[in-house]
Order: sequence, then structure tokens, then C-alpha cells
Amino acid sequence: MVTAAGDLPPVGELRLAIGGSRVLTDPDAMEGYRRDQTPSVEPGLPACVVLAESTADVSATLGWAQRHRVPVVPRGGGSSLAGGAAATDGCVILSLGRMNAIREVDPGNEIAVAEAGVFNADLDRAAAGHGLMYAPDPSSYEISTIGGNLATNAGGLRCVKYGVTRDAVLGLEVVLAGGRVLRTGRRTAKGVTGYDLTSLFVGSEGTLGVITSATLRLRQRPVSYPATMAAGFASFGAGAEAVTAILAARIRPSLLELMDSATLRAIDEWKSTGFGDEVRALLIAQDDTPAADQVVQAMRDVCAGSGAVLADVSESEAESRQLLDLRRLSYPAIERLGVPMVEDVCVPRTRLPEMIQRIEQAGERHGVFIATVAHAGDGNLHPVFVYDRGLPEVPAAVWSAADEVFRAALELGGTLTGEHGIGMIKRRWLAEELGEDSLAVHHAIKDALDPAGIMNPGKVL
Amino acid sequence: MVTAAGDLPPVGELRLAIGGSRVLTDPDAMEGYRRDQTPSVEPGLPACVVLAESTADVSATLGWAQRHRVPVVPRGGGSSLAGGAAATDGCVILSLGRMNAIREVDPGNEIAVAEAGVFNADLDRAAAGHGLMYAPDPSSYEISTIGGNLATNAGGLRCVKYGVTRDAVLGLEVVLAGGRVLRTGRRTAKGVTGYDLTSLFVGSEGTLGVITSATLRLRQRPVSYPATMAAGFASFGAGAEAVTAILAARIRPSLLELMDSATLRAIDEWKSTGFGDEVRALLIAQDDTPAADQVVQAMRDVCAGSGAVLADVSESEAESRQLLDLRRLSYPAIERLGVPMVEDVCVPRTRLPEMIQRIEQAGERHGVFIATVAHAGDGNLHPVFVYDRGLPEVPAAVWSAADEVFRAALELGGTLTGEHGIGMIKRRWLAEELGEDSLAVHHAIKDALDPAGIMNPGKVL
Repeated sequence: MVTAAGDLPPVGELRLAIGGSRVLTDPDAMEGYRRDQTPSVEPGLPACVVLAESTADVSATLGWAQRHRVPVVPRGGGSSLAGGAAATDGCVILSLGRMNAIREVDPGNEIAVAEAGVFNADLDRAAAGHGLMYAPDPSSYEISTIGGNLATNAGGLRCVKYGVTRDAVLGLEVVLAGGRVLRTGRRTAKGVTGYDLTSLFVGSEGTLGVITSATLRLRQRPVSYPATMAAGFASFGAGAEAVTAILAARIRPSLLELMDSATLRAIDEWKSTGFGDEVRALLIAQDDTPAADQVVQAMRDVCAGSGAVLADVSESEAESRQLLDLRRLSYPAIERLGVPMVEDVCVPRTRLPEMIQRIEQAGERHGVFIATVAHAGDGNLHPVFVYDRGLPEVPAAVWSAADEVFRAALELGGTLTGEHGIGMIKRRWLAEELGEDSLAVHHAIKDALDPAGIMNPGKVL
Repeated sequence: MVTAAGDLPPVGELRLAIGGSRVLTDPDAMEGYRRDQTPSVEPGLPACVVLAESTADVSATLGWAQRHRVPVVPRGGGSSLAGGAAATDGCVILSLGRMNAIREVDPGNEIAVAEAGVFNADLDRAAAGHGLMYAPDPSSYEISTIGGNLATNAGGLRCVKYGVTRDAVLGLEVVLAGGRVLRTGRRTAKGVTGYDLTSLFVGSEGTLGVITSATLRLRQRPVSYPATMAAGFASFGAGAEAVTAILAARIRPSLLELMDSATLRAIDEWKSTGFGDEVRALLIAQDDTPAADQVVQAMRDVCAGSGAVLADVSESEAESRQLLDLRRLSYPAIERLGVPMVEDVCVPRTRLPEMIQRIEQAGERHGVFIATVAHAGDGNLHPVFVYDRGLPEVPAAVWSAADEVFRAALELGGTLTGEHGIGMIKRRWLAEELGEDSLAVHHAIKDALDPAGIMNPGKVL
């Protein structure tokens, strides 16, 4: 354990600015704020935690941090799977959780203005009151915040139809290193005045500034619950080919998820699905249009034509929810087997069959259990590396298998991360994806916006 | 006229690198490259024009320009309406027109890789061969290039359904100031490795680097030609309210264009539409789904319920094209009346009625004829300021009226430019939209990527 004693920043000055009760320094009080949901990361010890309630609080904190060269770790819901919100020693944890006002819902222009600490699902529920929806829906939507979603450009299950977080953002309020408050973007559907600073901050994982609120695009909410299709295949590759066939048939489903054999076995051992051994991949698809029943039937027909060994469509909302539950059971079922390290590679969709082979080979070679769930329509795979509970750290074999998986994704024209971010855990592979020239541009931009290098240091770059 | 004589850059060195026949210095040969389609801008005199045929040519040119501090003006089709491609004195015009290869169309992953000089419409035709389309369709699609579209984040008529150019870009090849070649983004549907440099270059109007090629997202092409509805209203405001009503009815048309009274009179004087005096705004809408005929009928019903004085739907492809021709006639009809200065403001959609009033008031106050066409679903208006041919420069009254219009757009929560860019002509209003903190960030990024300040100087910032 590292201690930051000896060079403690002057927290008293910060207390004067923010109010004493919202600057925590008691180790027990800080404990709940220093780690995120990344099992492979052991967080550092923060100097203090600020519970910000306003943009002014964030500005005061960043001014103080700049003056005293204190590292700043912004924090939303703390649900990062990449170590993005993990404390570094001697940092100030800047929690945005209390900035949870939905400042505005404007149904005529289909936009909302939400503070960073609003939970994703709460924004969607507020939109629902106006017949609208907030489309990006990471699996963590009940516990992850808009600010964190923006910082990682979060994806989700509906992305295959509606796009990722960036596609839902019109403008941001960002507090820059040193405390200046920047407004980016606009309230209009289109606009090209100046550089696209909005997109620069989206996905920058807190390393360029702290997002305090956002103007977000809403969409018309589907009238009824989506209809669902489930199709079983003899292999993940066959399921992936059905995905391509569905999209080539000009169907644009609102959800298109593919689960591998290891995932299905984990669910079956827990809940006895009764699928039988010949089902080694399961494709779950939804459609949310008024013609949903016909669309899911059309998808079933495409799957049957692509060699599905079984295929079923929902006849009611209850059945639709039941079929989707098979997908929602994946992570809890895998978690029963040990510590889950949820990874996040993305390849061009047609390379899914090769990618799953490479994942299976890596697991076999290193003796690591890997279960994979994919946002298949986007080519985004979540291989979950499972290891025994009670081990002091991630076994070397897991890192070796992960290393193979990451390199395979790059070889297949893919990327290290589809929606979780680089955080702490993928920094060592960053240069391989970006290359030297891109890294140099990254550092030039980082230096321009954070010359002291105190914004979420040790993350991304 | 300004002459660059006396401090001519060493073009001979550039000729050795690029090949003599592709570096023009003859004034007559250069004449066709120094101006774009912005009537209010008198371009400068370039030192030379480079006809680049490869990324290596672009790299060599930017290396030479950096060494000798020569301003670089990148050029695609030269169709800018904001002076974005206009020469500055002593610059090198870097023409990308010969880099017009479509390097790849990948139907399985629905992507294309195109060089910067490919015309927008040519890419769409190449995609059509695979049942796909390239969705962004600026009105200039036959004469504007992918590189120029990217540099201005171009919009178009289909944006209301499919989004703008940025929404269609996955990755870029960019040559940076000094000649380094940068690759941004990826070939995958999603990804969040590092900063979103792709979006930073999109819309940067050649001030941060030169885009040489792009990996672009294609979409399934609609099976048949869209069906069309035309509805006449007693006022632009009534038409704008019908737009909101259509979208609130959960219809997402593929085109939604609104023309004002001045535009309709200009068309009528030329082509005798016979609409009559009570039609003071015309809404044209299309749908490109398999249910298009029913959708346009539904839109007609919404318009009738919103007080339309006439409403018609197409019964055949020929009729559909005829109705859309009313929209396509707008600019040529207005051009018959004088020099057209096509402007480009964007407001939140519900502010369209106020914005058109402000435009009409500005025209009346300053005695300037203004005809307005709007991509109404996006709140994007093109007020066309018309002045007499043969005048030596833009009359002061036109600038006064334009100034009022720009300020009104900002007051209504809008932006100076929806899809044309800032270029040379809107720089003086830039600070009013962005504010000081944003301008400081813009300059920090510009300085980081172009420390010598030679990339398209005098544009945007």
C-alpha cells in the first residue's frame, strides 16, 4: 500500500471553497469512491474526495488542483470496466454524482439538457414522459451516469440501430484544467462553426477536462415493447453469418446479440435452458418498429435459411422479455464461475467468425476460461476472462490470453475497445493500434489542454 | 490586386519533388484554381498550384510548404460558398482533384474507402452497384468532392433522416502540416481507442491538415425511388408547424424541405407553377421506405390537419421527381434575379417561424431581396441574398442585412452555419458564437497541429 503522506495538498483551502462537509478525507469515507468495477486494477489512495454539486464546485476544484499540481480523477457512477475511474495516489476524486439534475426536456426539438451525474436510465425515463427516448443503453444503464457514458463514448444494445453516445450529443459544458468553463457544440441538429470540440471531449476519459452537463439528442420512443427473435446455431460463425444475412436483407433490427457456447453452457448450468448440445451459439434480435411482429418473423426466416437449428419469435410482450432475458442472464451466469474480466474488442462485422476462433484458441492455449457475448451487428465482442476467486491478482495466463485476443482484433482490422475505453488496463497496447504519428498528435492535444498533466493521469495516454 | 513578387517561394524545389508538369505557375493555368463559388470573395494570387496524384505528393508539398513558410490552400471541387477554397496571396493551391480513386467498396461491412478528390455522386453511384448508398447529399453532390464534404462536414437533403457527413465517417488519412501522414479512426462500427481525431479534422476546413482519403459508412439503398408529397401553406410559419407535427407523428421522412414566398414567386415568374397567391410557403417531403406511398399520404393528412391550402402526393416515380423538381428549381430561379449570396444559418427546429420573420424584417429594413429555402427538418435555412449583377462588390446593405440575420440566428439559440462552414466570410462573427474560452481552445489546438500557421490561413480562425 502506498501512502501519500508527506506531500499532502492543502485540502483546507479546498474546503473553504467547496464547503467542508463535501470534501472528504477520512479513509473510511473515501473508500467507496476510490475503486471502480475493474477487478484487475488495485486503486491508489486519494488525498480527498470532492462531492461536487455545481459547475462552480468543479471549477473551484480544478483551479485548486492546478495551483497545487494535484491529480484529478473524475467519477460518475464508478462502473468503469477499464480502470477509468480508479484513484491514483494523492489525487482528488471529483465525484459528479450529486450533479444529477435533468435541466430541461424540450420535446419540440427532441433534446434534453442533463448534468453529468444523471443516471442513464433516469434520463431515458424522463424522456419517456414525453414519448421520447434516450437511445444509448449500455448494459450498466441503471448505475452508469451520462458523464461517464460521455467520457467513454459508451455503446449498448440499441447501438446497432441508433448509434453510440457520440451520435446522441449536440453540445457539452466542460470544465477545463485550471477551472475555465467551456461550452461546446449547440442546440441545433446541424452546425459547423469551429472545430468539433464536442467529439474531442466525448471518449477522452476525463483526460482533457471534466464534462459537467450535456445537450443530448432524444428520439421518438417506439410505441410498444420490441418483438424478439431467438435463433440457435451449431457454431458462433454460423450465427455471425446469419447476422450479415439479416442486415443484407435490408432489416435494421434494434438489437442483435450473439452469445457463444461457453456463455450458453454457463446459463444452462444455472437455469436449465434445455437447448441441447447442438446449440452452440444463440442469436437474439429485436425490432421496435410498428411492423415488429413481421420483422422478427422475417429474421427468423433468414436464420432458418442460414442453417439455424432452432428459431423462435415472441407472440407477446411477456414472451419478448423472456427471450431477451436469455441475453441478460449472460453476465450473472458467467460471474457464478469466478472473477469476470469483461473485455471489449471490436472488428469489422464480417470478421466475427475469425475473431471468435482466435478467442477460443487463446483460451485453449493459455488454459483460461473465456465466455463471449457480442453486440454482433456492430462487430463488438465482450470476451469475459474468468479466473478463480481469492487469487491475489489477475493470473499471468489471463493477461497472456488477453494479449493474444487484443492483437488478434488489431490484425483483423479491429480495435482494442468498442465502448469501454482504454482506461488504465489497455494503455500498454495503445501504441500498437494508434501508431507513432497518432500518439504524437494525442500528446500535442493533451499538452495543449492539460499542460500540467494532472487530468486523470495514467489513463489512456 | 496584390502581387506576391519579391518573396516567391522556391517552386523549383517543389517541381523536383512532384514532377514539373503538375506544379503550375503560369497565371492563366492557375486562374481556374484560385477562386471558389463564393461571390463575395475576391481571391488572392497563388504562387503555384500543385495537382496532387498521391498521398506522397501531398506529403511532399506540405513538407516544402513548412520549410519555406508557404500558406497552403487545399482544394477539392472548389464549390465552397464560404470562401473556404479561395486563394490567399503567395499560397500553394493544393488540388486533390486527381486523387479520385475509390479504393474499396466492402458490401459485407457496408464501408467504402475513397480518396479526397472523388465526387460525392460518383461514390454514391459506386455504392449503388452493391445495393448501397452514400447518404450525405449536399446540393452540390455532382461537383463537390468527398474531401471538401469532409472539410466542411457537409449536409444535404437526406440529412434529416441519415445525418451529416461526420455521421458517415469511420476514419481518415490526413497529411499534417510538415508532411507526416496520420491515420485516424478505424474500419469498425464502434471504437473508443484514443481521442476522436476523425471528428476533429471533419469540419476543420483544411486548417489542421489535408484529408487525403476516408473510410466511409455506406447504408442499404432504398429499393425504389422515394415517394413525394407537396403541401402549400399560407405562411412559412404554418409550414414549419406542419414540419414539427409530421415529426411528432413519429414519421421520419427522408427529405423535408420548406420554401418561402420569395422563392415560390421566383419559380413562378420563370416556370408558371400556377400555385396562386394564397400559397406562401411550400413543403416538399419524401419517404424512401417500402411503405413510402402510405407514409406520404400520412404526411399529407398531417399537413391538411395543420392548415395546408393544398397538398398532393406522387402516384408514380415520374410524379415524384416532378414534385421534387420544384425544390431543385429554387436556386436557378433565384439566380435569374441577380447575384445570389447563399447563406446558411441553423436554429432549433421550433424557432423556424421566428427565424423567417427575422430574415424578412432584415430584408425589408435594408432593402435587400432575400429568398429562403430550408432543410426544415434540421432547422437549417439558406437565405439567399440577391444583388444586382455588375456591381464591383457586395453592397453594404447586403452585409448589414446578413449581419442582422446571423445575430438573429444566434439569439434564437442557433448557429452561424449548418453545413457550409465559416470559411473567410463568417470569421468576423465567429467570436460571438463561440465565446472567448472556446476561441482560446481553438487556438491552442490550431497551434499544436499547425505551429507555423500556414494551413489554410485566414479561414475559420
